[in-house]
Amino acid sequence: MASTLLYEDLAGRLGAQIRRGLLRPGERLPSLRRLGRQERVSIATAVEAYLRLEREGLVEARERSGYFVRAAALRPPQARLPRLQARAPQALRNPALLDVLDVLSREDLLPLHVTTPAAELLPVRAIAAAASHVLRRDPGLALAYGAPQGLPALRECIARRYLHCGVEVDPGEVVITAGAMEAITLALRSVTRAGDVVLIETPTYYGILQAIAALGLRAIEVPNRVGAGIDAAAVRAVLARHRVAAAVLVPNFNNPSGSLTGEDDKRAIVAACGEHGVTVIEDDLYGELAYTGERPPPLRRYAGSTSVITCSSYSKTLAPGLRIGWALAGAHTDAIVRAKCFSSVATASLPQRAIAEYLARHDFDRALRRLRRELAANSQRWRDAVRRHWPADTRVSEPAGGMTLWLELGGGVEGQALLEAGAARGIGCLPGHLFSLRGDYRGHVRLGLGLAWTSRIEDGLRVLGRLADTLARRGAHKRTRP
Amino acid sequence: MASTLLYEDLAGRLGAQIRRGLLRPGERLPSLRRLGRQERVSIATAVEAYLRLEREGLVEARERSGYFVRAAALRPPQARLPRLQARAPQALRNPALLDVLDVLSREDLLPLHVTTPAAELLPVRAIAAAASHVLRRDPGLALAYGAPQGLPALRECIARRYLHCGVEVDPGEVVITAGAMEAITLALRSVTRAGDVVLIETPTYYGILQAIAALGLRAIEVPNRVGAGIDAAAVRAVLARHRVAAAVLVPNFNNPSGSLTGEDDKRAIVAACGEHGVTVIEDDLYGELAYTGERPPPLRRYAGSTSVITCSSYSKTLAPGLRIGWALAGAHTDAIVRAKCFSSVATASLPQRAIAEYLARHDFDRALRRLRRELAANSQRWRDAVRRHWPADTRVSEPAGGMTLWLELGGGVEGQALLEAGAARGIGCLPGHLFSLRGDYRGHVRLGLGLAWTSRIEDGLRVLGRLADTLARRGAHKRTRP
Repeated sequence: MASTLLYEDLAGRLGAQIRRGLLRPGERLPSLRRLGRQERVSIATAVEAYLRLEREGLVEARERSGYFVRAAALRPPQARLPRLQARAPQALRNPALLDVLDVLSREDLLPLHVTTPAAELLPVRAIAAAASHVLRRDPGLALAYGAPQGLPALRECIARRYLHCGVEVDPGEVVITAGAMEAITLALRSVTRAGDVVLIETPTYYGILQAIAALGLRAIEVPNRVGAGIDAAAVRAVLARHRVAAAVLVPNFNNPSGSLTGEDDKRAIVAACGEHGVTVIEDDLYGELAYTGERPPPLRRYAGSTSVITCSSYSKTLAPGLRIGWALAGAHTDAIVRAKCFSSVATASLPQRAIAEYLARHDFDRALRRLRRELAANSQRWRDAVRRHWPADTRVSEPAGGMTLWLELGGGVEGQALLEAGAARGIGCLPGHLFSLRGDYRGHVRLGLGLAWTSRIEDGLRVLGRLADTLARRGAHKRTRP
Repeated sequence: MASTLLYEDLAGRLGAQIRRGLLRPGERLPSLRRLGRQERVSIATAVEAYLRLEREGLVEARERSGYFVRAAALRPPQARLPRLQARAPQALRNPALLDVLDVLSREDLLPLHVTTPAAELLPVRAIAAAASHVLRRDPGLALAYGAPQGLPALRECIARRYLHCGVEVDPGEVVITAGAMEAITLALRSVTRAGDVVLIETPTYYGILQAIAALGLRAIEVPNRVGAGIDAAAVRAVLARHRVAAAVLVPNFNNPSGSLTGEDDKRAIVAACGEHGVTVIEDDLYGELAYTGERPPPLRRYAGSTSVITCSSYSKTLAPGLRIGWALAGAHTDAIVRAKCFSSVATASLPQRAIAEYLARHDFDRALRRLRRELAANSQRWRDAVRRHWPADTRVSEPAGGMTLWLELGGGVEGQALLEAGAARGIGCLPGHLFSLRGDYRGHVRLGLGLAWTSRIEDGLRVLGRLADTLARRGAHKRTRP
């Protein structure tokens, strides 16, 4: 009986250390021999203690490596649901959004703050070869103006690909744009006027917030729940209460949270928007990047009579710097082509022809499989690094796709403080308050997953974790001072 | 004495026929032998008559070809100066501007309606080689995101080149955009708000009118005098009377009229805008295309303390389809970079790198000299064709640079009617009413000069002329019917 009590006592103490974060997720526990020596118990008792902790889900055995504090000890960021009744449409009141450009432009930082796929993850040689081929074949054509709506061959490739996820698209409604962001801006310009109210989710991509601000629109937020996506009930509640001109939503792998909105919610959201005559502008930038390889359908799949403008681009899947995106513009095609023509005449020809050539001659699916595999691996690597090196009370998303990790810092540490401390050490991250209308998520940061995994990245993630720890201790110290 | 009277009489009759348009500019006169036979005079008398007409400037001898009705018989379009007192700021009321896209998108027309330089006039092989080189050297970099403000190496090239015309530009104020039109749009967005009044010239580029309409601005027009450019006195008068937020002007080779604003007017315009705190947005798209080769300075040259944002691009000088333009943004740099970033993130990398590479390794000046020479020749060829084949009362601009010819049709023919008749025969032209706020210039058309000269072009110009003639006769017939 004494030995029973001994191992229970030992397991209890170790469990408490894990729960309090003294032993961190991913951290290796002492070997059985060493634990026995430290605690002056037999190896058998040490074994019993670890088995007990394993049953409790706190540690895991790894073959030939010993026991580790478990992955499952990572908890996802809390879904801070805005109290809907208290929220009203309002203009952007987030001065930090004006500074994000300064952070994004810094080329001296280890780019954990951006969501750009690294060249190593993309078929750059094949795209470069396609571009060179196009230049050789007919240089005049590659450098000449194209039609404002975009290259017909490319519009057909884009339309055809949507068949893979059950969406019929007429090439005649595909408008080529300078990336998804221009598509969203043009769509907003075509269906709203200054002062209109737009429904968005929170957290959401800061670019959407900036576009809304630039067009003089107001916005109202519904929660995007970490791990569960946009809440259709919240959308319905907002539409019942407020006059909304358009909804700008990121159902597939929301940036920053990586959440995927479920099919039932998608269907219900589109139906609710249709009932209220609200045009849905869908940012489907990450739709092709499901780690399972199973592409979730865009909202457009459920459109029926609802007007859904799906926006996306090749910036995350083929070539960020070619700036080739599109809108599936439906009934808004003429208006969007006009807006495009009036603001930038047409999208550059060479990049359009290069991508059309790549798609005709190379295996886009194979390149995508490789990219997805790398991103899935990165999300595990990033999470592992957070487990090992960040404070134990850090909460972290477990994305099923996309290019971002969303972390909630513990110990009252603010994302802005981590950004500043990280930047001083040459490491980037984006503070969470950039991802909402009023600067919520002050305790969050977003990390990008698009980098090629190297020891430099691992070091960067470790340094950021240590800095978060230092900031937490400093804060705790301040809080306990008289 | 009898013979003197004979040749004077003959010259008088021929002169009257020329003046009444029965003998058309560019038309070949009968040979001396034939004229002698027709008129029953000696060849000596016929010679005397032609010499007399030559002294009067009505005909010209061409070596080994005989006598022709002179070029000088072409008169420039009338400068219809708007009565300034009667004009007030107003929103765009020109529904035709919504249709221009349909015309511009038609690929089945002989493209006399566009102002795009043909591949044959540009150094396309050198640019293609530069692009291929950039792709080979570092494909990852060529396809990666660049900074929102644009590639530093390219910004330096642009800044340096302005030294040629006495303008000091800091590369730090150069913002790369998707063509000059995006630069103008971003500049407008940065210095105006919906409802503001913008000063423009008339006629002016329809793209400027569309941008003004898209941003919900109102505009007030000052005349751009054919052959003399923007009238500084008119600018002063408007600024004294109206509160204006910005002026969008095309002082160097206005599109459509090709007029160059003189230096005194430029200086006075900038000074007047400075006095009233008006930001000048300058469309300097054609500044490098003076037929004499002497580049006229942009308004920026005279800026002093006036805020002048100069916008231009490589679309007319190197590669229309690469969509690389810029703004010299001065104090507005941050605002314009932000607006750029918020609407389309950044300009595509590959086109920027291709042009920077071209400028570093090839002789831009040589390419420009060739282009200017071709455009100058084209302006003469186009004018010659108009002389020969269009109704004699057609008035036509004599541009000193740029890429457009501006024609005033005689006989009450409308540009729209000529567009429709031409399109039915597969030939494009742009009706004049696209170039003003309220659809003035109904009797004008604009032709582009950027095509490579072939018999197809000559045929097209001839057919358009004949159509104008037919329309005039039909109109005259209607007018004379009881």
